[in-house]
Amino acid sequence: MKPKHAFPTTAFLLSQEDIPHQWFNIVPELPKPIDPYISCVTGEVVTADELAPLLPGELLRQEFTDESWVDIPDEVYEAYKLWRPTPLRRAVRLERALDTPAHIYFKHEGTSPAGSHKPNTAIPQVFYAKQDGAKRVVTETGAGQWGSGVAMAACLLGLESKIYMVNVSYNQKPYRRVFIECFGGQVVPSPSPDTAIGREYLKQDPDNPGNLGIAVAEAVEDAKGRDDTKYVLGSALSYVLMHQTVIGQEAKRQMEMAGEYPDVVIGCVGGGSNWGGLALPFVSDKMARGLGTRVVMVEPTAAPSMTQGKFDYDYAEPSKTIPMMRMYSLGVDYQPASIHAGGLRLSCVAPICSVLLESGVVEARAVAQMPVFEAARIFLQAEAIVPAPESAHAILAVIDEALECRKTGEAKTILFNLSGHGLFDLGAYDKFNSGQLENA
Amino acid sequence: MKPKHAFPTTAFLLSQEDIPHQWFNIVPELPKPIDPYISCVTGEVVTADELAPLLPGELLRQEFTDESWVDIPDEVYEAYKLWRPTPLRRAVRLERALDTPAHIYFKHEGTSPAGSHKPNTAIPQVFYAKQDGAKRVVTETGAGQWGSGVAMAACLLGLESKIYMVNVSYNQKPYRRVFIECFGGQVVPSPSPDTAIGREYLKQDPDNPGNLGIAVAEAVEDAKGRDDTKYVLGSALSYVLMHQTVIGQEAKRQMEMAGEYPDVVIGCVGGGSNWGGLALPFVSDKMARGLGTRVVMVEPTAAPSMTQGKFDYDYAEPSKTIPMMRMYSLGVDYQPASIHAGGLRLSCVAPICSVLLESGVVEARAVAQMPVFEAARIFLQAEAIVPAPESAHAILAVIDEALECRKTGEAKTILFNLSGHGLFDLGAYDKFNSGQLENA
Repeated sequence: MKPKHAFPTTAFLLSQEDIPHQWFNIVPELPKPIDPYISCVTGEVVTADELAPLLPGELLRQEFTDESWVDIPDEVYEAYKLWRPTPLRRAVRLERALDTPAHIYFKHEGTSPAGSHKPNTAIPQVFYAKQDGAKRVVTETGAGQWGSGVAMAACLLGLESKIYMVNVSYNQKPYRRVFIECFGGQVVPSPSPDTAIGREYLKQDPDNPGNLGIAVAEAVEDAKGRDDTKYVLGSALSYVLMHQTVIGQEAKRQMEMAGEYPDVVIGCVGGGSNWGGLALPFVSDKMARGLGTRVVMVEPTAAPSMTQGKFDYDYAEPSKTIPMMRMYSLGVDYQPASIHAGGLRLSCVAPICSVLLESGVVEARAVAQMPVFEAARIFLQAEAIVPAPESAHAILAVIDEALECRKTGEAKTILFNLSGHGLFDLGAYDKFNSGQLENA
Repeated sequence: MKPKHAFPTTAFLLSQEDIPHQWFNIVPELPKPIDPYISCVTGEVVTADELAPLLPGELLRQEFTDESWVDIPDEVYEAYKLWRPTPLRRAVRLERALDTPAHIYFKHEGTSPAGSHKPNTAIPQVFYAKQDGAKRVVTETGAGQWGSGVAMAACLLGLESKIYMVNVSYNQKPYRRVFIECFGGQVVPSPSPDTAIGREYLKQDPDNPGNLGIAVAEAVEDAKGRDDTKYVLGSALSYVLMHQTVIGQEAKRQMEMAGEYPDVVIGCVGGGSNWGGLALPFVSDKMARGLGTRVVMVEPTAAPSMTQGKFDYDYAEPSKTIPMMRMYSLGVDYQPASIHAGGLRLSCVAPICSVLLESGVVEARAVAQMPVFEAARIFLQAEAIVPAPESAHAILAVIDEALECRKTGEAKTILFNLSGHGLFDLGAYDKFNSGQLENA
C-alpha cells in the first residue's frame, strides 16, 4: 500500500514541444517610440551599413523591425532544447518562512548550462554571426556570465570565441575563466596586449584593473579588424531583450498551469535583459487589457540609472562605438562601486526599459548590497538554491512585497526571475557569512 | 505562421506526482545473502543496540529489513520536491560527436540543490535523526559533496550540522566550505582540535593533510559524546543505496517514455551509492526476467577495490567503529593517489555491490584519470554540462561502449548516471586544460 503525499504542486514543467517557436518583440506596442539611435561618428541617425562590419545583419534587422513576432531558427531551437523549458517553481517554503499569505513563484533561469539567462541570446547571436560567414565571435565580460554564455554558444555552433574579461574579475573569479576555457573559449584579462587600445591602457598602468568600457573597446577593435569575426553584445539592445522573451512566454503558460496570474512581476535590472525576458509578455498584457499588474525593475543603489539617472541621449559605453541612445543614464563615465552583482554595474539601461519607465507602465526601485545578501540567505535556506547576487536584488523586492502582504492580509501573486545561480559567487557569500561584506 | 521544429525529443520529464513513494530494497533478491556484520569491539555479529547511540533507529531497522519496499516519509517527500524528479536526457549531440549508432541516455542528478545525488539519502538520514530526538547531525566529507548534502538537509529540517572536512580538501575547495556555511553548517578542517583523536593527530603534525578515515573517527567521537547528536553516513551501507533508488525508479519510467530499455547501464563507483541508485531497479529486472542487460561499475585505477581487491571481511574505515563487512576491499590502510574524483577514493565498496559482482550479475572496470578528463571534455563540449570528475568515470565507459557500437554497427541503448556537476571542480579542469593533470 503506497502512502499518499498530498502536498501542493510546486513545480510547473513544460515539455520540449512547449519551447516557444518565436520571440516576442514589444517595440511596436510601446506607448512611445524609441528615439532614433545616433551615430557617435557622424552625429546623424545611425545606418545599418555603418554597423554591418561589426554586427550580424539579421540582428540589425531585428533591432529595427516592427514585426511583433520573429521566428526562432531551427539550429537555435535545437540548442535551446539542451535546457529549455526552464522550471517555474512556487516557493512554498519561502512563503512559510515569511509567514505571508502571498503566493511566490519564480522562473529558474539558473538551470541553463552557463548558469544564467544569457545563453537565450548568446545562441541566436552566434548563430546569426555564423550565418554571415563568421568563423569567430568576440565579446567582453565583466562578472563572466555573458562570456560563459558566448563561449558555450560558440562551442555548440562550431565557432571560435575570444572573451575580453575585465582584469579584476579575471583574477577574482578564476572559475569563470576556467568554465569559458572548458568550452574552448579564449579568455584574456582586459586591458590586454592583444589590441591597440589595450596596449595603450597597459602602457599607462601595467596593473590596470580594467572595466567594461575598456573591454568593449577591445572586443570592438578586434571585430572591426578581422573579416572572419563578429561582435556580440549581451544587453540593452532591443533584440537582446526580444531573444530573452522565451522566459516570459514560458512563464505565462506555467502560471496558467498553476491557475494564477501575477499581481506583481519583478526582475533585477542591469541593462534590462533578464527583466525584459520575463516581464515584457506581461507588460504587453497589461497595456492591451488594462490590467493592474505591477511590473517592478530592481537596480542596485551603486548604479541607480533608473531612480537617479536622466532620460536623455547618452553613450552606452566609453569607447563610443555603439550608437548614442535615448535612455536613463548616469553618464557614461559614472563609476559604480565594486558591488558583487557585476551584472548590474551599468551606467545606463535599455531604451525599452527607459520608455516603459518614462511612460509610467512599469516602476523602478534601488536596493543596497547588504539587505540584498540578507534576502539571498533567507531564500537559499528556504528553497535550497544559491542565487546569483544579481538575482538576489529581485528576491529582496519580492520579500518586501510578501511582508507587506503579511501586514495587509492580501494574498498577492508575485512572480520573479531567478536569472542565475550563485555557485561562482561564493567568494562574495563568504564575505557576507563572515561579516566582511560592505553595504555598497 | 509558426515554424515547425521537428527534432527528436531529448528530455524526458516527470511531474512531481511521479516522484516514487517508496524506496526499493534489493537485499531480499540478492543471489547470495550479505554476510553478517561483525562488531569491531566484540568480534561477534553486531547488534542494533551496539550501534543505536550512533545511528538513528529507523536506519538500523532499514539496514537489516527484508522488506522489498520502504515507505518514504511525508517530510522527506516534500523536500525531494525541491528538485525531483530529475531529468532523463538523451545525449544526441554526444551521439553525433562520436558518430555512433548507439542511443545514449543519462539521468541528471547534478540538478539537485547540492549538485549531486547525495541529498537523496542525506534528507531521510537527517529526518530519522530528528525523529529520534536529535537536534544535531555530524559527518565527515572528503571532496565536499556529502557534506553539502548533509548541511542542506539539516537546514531544511531545522537541525544543526557539523562537518569534519578532510584538511587538504578544506583548503583546495573553499567554495564547498562556503556552500556548506551558506546553509548554516559548521565546517572544520580535519584533523581538528575539537575532538580527542583530532588533537592527537595535530600533536604529531600540526599541518596534517587529513584523510577520510580520520574525519570519520572525529565525527563518530563527536556523535558518541553527545545525546543530542547522530552520525550520518553517505555511502556503502544498504540503506544508503536503497534511498538512492529513487533515481533508478524514475529512470525506468523515463526510459519507457523514450520507448527504449537499456542494453547497458553504467555508473561510477566509490562506495556504490549513485551506481546502486540508478542500477539496482534494472538489476532486479535482469535477475527476475533473465534479461541480458549489462550493468557496469566504473572505478578509478587509483582505488581499484573491485578489480584488484579481495572479497573478504574488512574494516570500512580506519577508526574501526563501523562494523566489519564482507566486501571487496584493498585493505583499510590503502592510500589511493590524490585523484580529483575525491568521491571515488575509497578502499572498499558496498556489500550489495560486492555480492552482485562476486555472483557475476554485474561487471566492474577501472579507468585512469587522464582519459576520464578527456571523456569529460568530449561530453561537456557536446552536451554543455560540466560533469563532476566522479561522473566522468562513467562517461568514459559510455564513450567506449558507443565507439564499439560504431565499429560493430549495433544501435545499443546505453544509460548512465550523471551523478553530479563539476562546477566546484574547475580547479581540476584548469589543470587538465593547461596540460598539468597527472594520469594517476
